[in-house]
Amino acid sequence: MSRGKFITFEGGEGAGKSTQVRRLVARLEARGVEVVATREPGGSPGAEAIRALVLTGSADRWSPVTETLLMYGARRDHIERTIVPALERGAWVVCDRFADSTRAYQGGAGGVAPDLIAALENHVLAEVRPDLTLVFDLPVEVGLARAEAHAEASGHAETRFESKGVDFHERLRAAFREIAAVEPDRCVLVKAADTIEGVEAAVWTAVAARLPVHG
Amino acid sequence: MSRGKFITFEGGEGAGKSTQVRRLVARLEARGVEVVATREPGGSPGAEAIRALVLTGSADRWSPVTETLLMYGARRDHIERTIVPALERGAWVVCDRFADSTRAYQGGAGGVAPDLIAALENHVLAEVRPDLTLVFDLPVEVGLARAEAHAEASGHAETRFESKGVDFHERLRAAFREIAAVEPDRCVLVKAADTIEGVEAAVWTAVAARLPVHG
Repeated sequence: MSRGKFITFEGGEGAGKSTQVRRLVARLEARGVEVVATREPGGSPGAEAIRALVLTGSADRWSPVTETLLMYGARRDHIERTIVPALERGAWVVCDRFADSTRAYQGGAGGVAPDLIAALENHVLAEVRPDLTLVFDLPVEVGLARAEAHAEASGHAETRFESKGVDFHERLRAAFREIAAVEPDRCVLVKAADTIEGVEAAVWTAVAARLPVHG
Repeated sequence: MSRGKFITFEGGEGAGKSTQVRRLVARLEARGVEVVATREPGGSPGAEAIRALVLTGSADRWSPVTETLLMYGARRDHIERTIVPALERGAWVVCDRFADSTRAYQGGAGGVAPDLIAALENHVLAEVRPDLTLVFDLPVEVGLARAEAHAEASGHAETRFESKGVDFHERLRAAFREIAAVEPDRCVLVKAADTIEGVEAAVWTAVAARLPVHG
C-alpha cells in the first residue's frame, strides 16, 4: 500500500473552506479513495482541547508567540495521532488549515519572527508536508461578513481571530497570497468569492491535475 | 530601580522544592526584598490553563515533543505576563521549575532532540535567563515515595509524570545532575534528602553568596 496524499486548505476567515473540504471528500470517496477529513487547530482529542484554549476568549488572551507554540503543540498531536497513521495506511488526508496558517496568522499578520516558525517547521513537522495546498483568497470585507453571519447562525464562541480587526485581516490575506506565490509547486490560489459550485470546480481541477486518482 | 534577580528551583518529583521556595521567599522578604513567588507550568492565568492539560490524565496523553511545545507555550505566557513585569519593577522572582525542567523531563528523560529544545530556548526565552538555579538532587526512590505521600494527602490529580516509572525518573535525575555540572556559574546542586532545615540553610548559603541583598 502506497502512502496516501495530504491536501490542505488554507485562507482567512469566511473563505468557505469547510464546505469545500466536504465536497472534495465526497468526490474522492466516490472514486474509491479512503479519505480522512480533519481540521486544525484540532483533529485529535488532545489537539481539540488545545483548540478550545486558543480560539475562545479575548483577542489579546494569548500573544502571537504563545499562540505559535500552542498551535504547534496541537499540530504535533494531530500529526502523530491522526495524520501519520492515516497516510501510512494509504488513506488521503484532507485538512482544513495546517502549517501555513501559523505562517500567516502568527507570522505575517501577528509579527512572530520567521526564524521561530521555520525552526518549528523543521523540528516539529519533520517529513509531514502537504502534497497540495489550496489557498482560498477573497476580499477581507467579504470574508469577515461571511464569518460573522456564520458565527451568529451557529452561536459558536470561536471568534478570537475574527475579532482582531481589519488591519490584521489585510496582513493575513497578504501573507497567504505570498505563500502561494513563493511555493507554486505546492500551492494553488483559489478565488473564493466565486459561487460554491465554481469554487468546487476549481478545487477539483487542481486536485485532479496534480494528484491523479488511481482507482 | 535596577532589574530584580531571577532564581529558579529545579529537580525531580518529591524533592521538596515548593517548601523551600516558601522559606527562601520569607528570608528575602524579611530583608526588605519584594519577591514574586511563582511556578511552572503555570504562574499566569493562561499558563495555569495549559498546566491543567499537561499534568493530568494518563502518562501517554501527550508525546514528549507535544509536551515540549505546550510547556514552552505556558512558559512564554508566564514570562510575558508575570516574570518580566516583576523583574522590570525591581522585584525578585523565585520560580518552582523553569526551562531546565524541559531539558530534563522532555529532553534527557523523554528523548526530545536537543536541537528543538535549544531552538526554543533561543527564540522563546530571549534574554530571560535565571541568575541562579538551585538543582535539588535526591535518590529516585526517596523522591517518588515522598511525591506519592503528598499526592495522597492532598488528593491532587497532577500525577502524570510521577506515573512514568522508575527508569524515566533515573534518566531525569541524571539529566538534572548534568545541567548542574555543565553550568556551574548558574547552578548549585542541593542535597535534597537532608532535613528541611538543612536544605533551607544550603539554599540560603547559595543565594547569599551569589546574589547579595542590598537593603
